[in-house]
Amino acid sequence: MRERSFWGWGYADRYPDAAGRDNVAQLVEATLGFAPTARLDAPSLDAVALRAPRFEAPAALADVVDQGAEARIRHTYGRAYRDVVRGFHRDFAVAPDAVATPRDEADVRRILDFAADARVAVVPYGGGSSVVGGVECAGEGHAGVLSLDLGALNGVLEVSHIDRLARIQAGALGPALEAGLKAHGLTLRHFPQSFEHSTLGGWIATRAGGHFATLYTHIDDLVASVRMLTPAGLYATRTLPGSGAGPSPDRLALGSEGALGVITEAVVRVRPRPTFRAQASLHFARFEDAVEAAREIAQAGLYPSNCRLLDAREAALNAVTADGSSVLIVAFESADHPLAPWLERAVELGRGRGGVVQGSLTYREGEAARGEGSAEAWRSAFIDAPYLQSILVGLGIMADTFETACPWSRFGELHAALVHDVRDAMKRVAGRGTLTCRFTHVYPDGPAPYYTFLCPTRPGSELSQWAEIKAAASEALLKHGATITHHHAVGRTHRPWYQRQVPEAFQAALRAAKVALDPAGILNPGVLV
Amino acid sequence: MRERSFWGWGYADRYPDAAGRDNVAQLVEATLGFAPTARLDAPSLDAVALRAPRFEAPAALADVVDQGAEARIRHTYGRAYRDVVRGFHRDFAVAPDAVATPRDEADVRRILDFAADARVAVVPYGGGSSVVGGVECAGEGHAGVLSLDLGALNGVLEVSHIDRLARIQAGALGPALEAGLKAHGLTLRHFPQSFEHSTLGGWIATRAGGHFATLYTHIDDLVASVRMLTPAGLYATRTLPGSGAGPSPDRLALGSEGALGVITEAVVRVRPRPTFRAQASLHFARFEDAVEAAREIAQAGLYPSNCRLLDAREAALNAVTADGSSVLIVAFESADHPLAPWLERAVELGRGRGGVVQGSLTYREGEAARGEGSAEAWRSAFIDAPYLQSILVGLGIMADTFETACPWSRFGELHAALVHDVRDAMKRVAGRGTLTCRFTHVYPDGPAPYYTFLCPTRPGSELSQWAEIKAAASEALLKHGATITHHHAVGRTHRPWYQRQVPEAFQAALRAAKVALDPAGILNPGVLV
Repeated sequence: MRERSFWGWGYADRYPDAAGRDNVAQLVEATLGFAPTARLDAPSLDAVALRAPRFEAPAALADVVDQGAEARIRHTYGRAYRDVVRGFHRDFAVAPDAVATPRDEADVRRILDFAADARVAVVPYGGGSSVVGGVECAGEGHAGVLSLDLGALNGVLEVSHIDRLARIQAGALGPALEAGLKAHGLTLRHFPQSFEHSTLGGWIATRAGGHFATLYTHIDDLVASVRMLTPAGLYATRTLPGSGAGPSPDRLALGSEGALGVITEAVVRVRPRPTFRAQASLHFARFEDAVEAAREIAQAGLYPSNCRLLDAREAALNAVTADGSSVLIVAFESADHPLAPWLERAVELGRGRGGVVQGSLTYREGEAARGEGSAEAWRSAFIDAPYLQSILVGLGIMADTFETACPWSRFGELHAALVHDVRDAMKRVAGRGTLTCRFTHVYPDGPAPYYTFLCPTRPGSELSQWAEIKAAASEALLKHGATITHHHAVGRTHRPWYQRQVPEAFQAALRAAKVALDPAGILNPGVLV
Repeated sequence: MRERSFWGWGYADRYPDAAGRDNVAQLVEATLGFAPTARLDAPSLDAVALRAPRFEAPAALADVVDQGAEARIRHTYGRAYRDVVRGFHRDFAVAPDAVATPRDEADVRRILDFAADARVAVVPYGGGSSVVGGVECAGEGHAGVLSLDLGALNGVLEVSHIDRLARIQAGALGPALEAGLKAHGLTLRHFPQSFEHSTLGGWIATRAGGHFATLYTHIDDLVASVRMLTPAGLYATRTLPGSGAGPSPDRLALGSEGALGVITEAVVRVRPRPTFRAQASLHFARFEDAVEAAREIAQAGLYPSNCRLLDAREAALNAVTADGSSVLIVAFESADHPLAPWLERAVELGRGRGGVVQGSLTYREGEAARGEGSAEAWRSAFIDAPYLQSILVGLGIMADTFETACPWSRFGELHAALVHDVRDAMKRVAGRGTLTCRFTHVYPDGPAPYYTFLCPTRPGSELSQWAEIKAAASEALLKHGATITHHHAVGRTHRPWYQRQVPEAFQAALRAAKVALDPAGILNPGVLV
């Protein structure tokens, strides 16, 4: 089995050798205009020092619990910038005291019972790809921390073609889940950037967003029912296409971030793999015009699979164009019908705002639409992007992202504030920096803008530099009516702003719900409530 | 102002005179094959006897509270079959003790404070159109019951064209809300059958379904934020196109049925009024083929505004066709683009299952698509339908509906069971009866079937006859994996089955949330928790 990095994104063998890192360094300097501040080799797992476990797991759990150093190190962090920095520097001070790997729900139940009795904090762990401190738990006030790795619960259990439903275990990683569905000619079509290293259960717990721009792309809309083990009992909803019976039980599990229960499986809405694709790329001299075009397409009832706006810097960084244009990529896909009327109307709207089509409108059909071609290439590049962040840490460069959503009318002001405040913060802490923007999703009532910031760091000061930039961004989001997160979740990182965003009365209700489901307060303490 | 009936559906002047009722009686006998068992005149409000109020409202609330008989009578019931029967027979034993009509949130707050101190139950009241006992409260364990009528909070407060958002007060009835939006060229496009006599707040509290078949038709998807006054404080969410920040606070308010707070306003997603419409009607010799056609259209990614399947009896009762065919009406609408490719593909799918197009595909554009024509005629007939139920009560005929949703693969068995069990129950309690079926909504993973049952009653036994039929239907729904309600809500009528449908762990969480928001337990006691 291919080994995953214990400190950085994804597979260990993707961290380049010294020559490869030199290439990246040169590319960075040419693109961003500032030089790497370091040239560090990757850390070694053997060199990590861990404290002794704060509790000893009982013999009765020996079959599912591992208290060895490697398991504990590998379950300490998600893959936020600050996780990678700490991992790189072998700081695993908050490592859990034990890692459990249940093989079935009975194992999960045994572990929860032990933890409730022993007051051990339990952190449900899927792919470990959280970028918001979702799986990092110090365990204050608890006898210790147990990371509950759902990785062995990873089967595609049932598939119904007629219902377009599949029952899948929560620990299934993206590729395994899609492979299981592909055997049936189906796809969940949920591709978050973490796809390779995140799980169905993690997607549900964090309300993950897929990479499609409209309609059924959020995991929220793809869940037909959920099974969640709570300390207070089984929380299993009925598989339904729709129900108006009280507040939705599924929607309370969605976004619960491991604080209400351990999601063990879900029935999800799947679909045939597309056999028609249509795509066009429009360039705009002015970013504002591209935004208006994206808005009009989002409001036209066409429902493109992609409506991805890249600002000029984002387009340049992604080698799409370096001529200062903003780029709008519009695409449609279907397993049912050719898409020319859809794409032509979207392009017409884009042209109406001054967009110029690059090349021609492209259409693909049949097998050609299924897996090859530019859509897959783009998705693959998209899914590979997080590797770069880890490489840059070794070069002393901070690269991180934040994302949000807001009504269209607030975007201009929000964007200007973010550009000002985040650049200002980067200048303060790093002397300089780059901020880019794209839209990941568009709704009739607003866009979901996604920002990437890059700046040089001072060795040893990375975390404080990062915290100042992150706070500047988060404050601007809150101030301008946006959300602290559109699809990255709350975790521990966003919690201060989350508490200001969400009504206190709702937080009181959520706290009460948590006490009902988790009376001993053992589940992922520190997130949400 | 046009007077509403105090016992039956809608406006009082819509109850026909004796000659008009004779016409209906003849029509019923010709259509259903059984004769009316009664010819009753409408009851008079003056003849209703009420008990004395159980509490006296304090002088400080005299400006907003009415304890007169008429107000109390008019706020006793919703408009379920059993409500109309009891109203017709002047049984208002469960009348509330007072009716409050707040003019603003400060009034609502004053009323809630009084009620919490006095342990008076508070029933939020919108249009009073509940068909599940949502506003009928006996007040056991309380000092009495106060009906909180939001009717004076009915303004369209703000409209944003660019965001396609409107801030609207919860007490706005459908027609007033649409009139306010029409002035801006916009529509909420949410048309539940209760449209004329239900409110935005009621739609949110009950998770109402609109009459469109796919996509943005449920009020759930149209709510961008909500303001709800709870005894524990204001619950006001942020207006966002999307957010992944923890479990959705909006989704806890949606479906809360007045048990968690008093919804005072919401920001909703609106859209331009359509300028393109396309429609076709397909007839099928076999119901099963029509179901398959509906499924394939629902799964094709075309998103019709209408995909309404009528079984042969439903088609005959609605005078669509009497030749034994099942009918599938497929329609599209847009404010942006002509719809021929959409309709043609849907028709092609229908033909593939043996459907025969009746007449031609119809297209309308511009003003003609805006308000006239068959779509409006159909909507108007749809919205008028509940009047018939009230008229039939006076003729001794029971007419009621129930609705559900289930995965496609379960529909055949569910439908057979319902046909068997409900007909059997009607035969037992009434000697005979008719059951019809249509689909109101279709999803990729299943339909939302809607059933109407009609049978003669024995004077004085209507409620027990009804209860036996309703129980037979509800048991079949639960047994075959369907939901007890897709869009009628839970109220008091569906509660026993709701409690079996929803996981106990979720109910425990909901109870805890209620205690947090409503510590004195005054809000609509008896629903949900």
